Amino acid sequence: MWTESNNSLEQSFLFSDFNEAFSFMTRVALYAEQINHHPEWSNVYNKVTIRLQTHSVGNKVTELDWAMARFIDKIYLR
Amino acid sequence: MWTESNNSLEQSFLFSDFNEAFSFMTRVALYAEQINHHPEWSNVYNKVTIRLQTHSVGNKVTELDWAMARFIDKIYLR
Amino acid sequence: MWTESNNSLEQSFLFSDFNEAFSFMTRVALYAEQINHHPEWSNVYNKVTIRLQTHSVGNKVTELDWAMARFIDKIYLR
Amino acid sequence: MWTESNNSLEQSFLFSDFNEAFSFMTRVALYAEQINHHPEWSNVYNKVTIRLQTHSVGNKVTELDWAMARFIDKIYLR
Repeated sequence: MWTESNNSLEQSFLFSDFNEAFSFMTRVALYAEQINHHPEWSNVYNKVTIRLQTHSVGNKVTELDWAMARFIDKIYLR
Repeated sequence: MWTESNNSLEQSFLFSDFNEAFSFMTRVALYAEQINHHPEWSNVYNKVTIRLQTHSVGNKVTELDWAMARFIDKIYLR
Repeated sequence: MWTESNNSLEQSFLFSDFNEAFSFMTRVALYAEQINHHPEWSNVYNKVTIRLQTHSVGNKVTELDWAMARFIDKIYLR
Repeated sequence: MWTESNNSLEQSFLFSDFNEAFSFMTRVALYAEQINHHPEWSNVYNKVTIRLQTHSVGNKVTELDWAMARFIDKIYLR
């Protein structure tokens, strides 16, 4: 599902409303603090767009980004 | 599912972990601000216990409590 | 502080870390549900960028946007 | 500020409203995931009560609880 381009993983996610979208963001935020790796992301109402890239190694896609992507897929698809 | 006793609605909810439990609480918090009606609730790791009662009418169960209970059931059971 | 351009209000906010940035977003999210008016916003670690515009009246800046801007200033500046 | 009794640290915190109380809880939740140590806590509108104890070593107060207490004091008192 994730698009890999410009040395980053990108994906957009749709929800039924803002309530559902922001609680999804809260799950991602809690996980981000757990693995100390944070997304670049934007939100408009029921849409969340996420871009994953590891800055500390020169803006590349690393295993941390894939771990985040897998977590996001798991909570979005369930 | 909700137990009505002592003029309040009570129910406990179990989740797979704290991440899932707290994002559930975030959904309830956002809805609480939307309808301006707030729960009494507690959390330990993956468990959330909620008590609903309307203080402004003398601590009774009102339609606001049932609206909150229905919202909580909807997001928990899906 | 807010820049009005392209029929929207825009402003960026810096925090000490992701923890502080995301709890600021949570405050804005709770208020957004309360007034039923939602921001376009993005976040990277400790930076939050917000754009306010009222879509329902043809993408203009309205009193709802200014109410949101005042709330954000109040919680950011305290 | 924290009361140590029954092998736990306890403290209550007051805020101006639910919005401020729940974003405080969000800060604590994000930190809890970061250090993998979670509070027992309850909330009613603008009041948050927190109890800290380490279950994995037989329900005692450990350095993890004091780390959490110091973080909470830091974000509450600022």
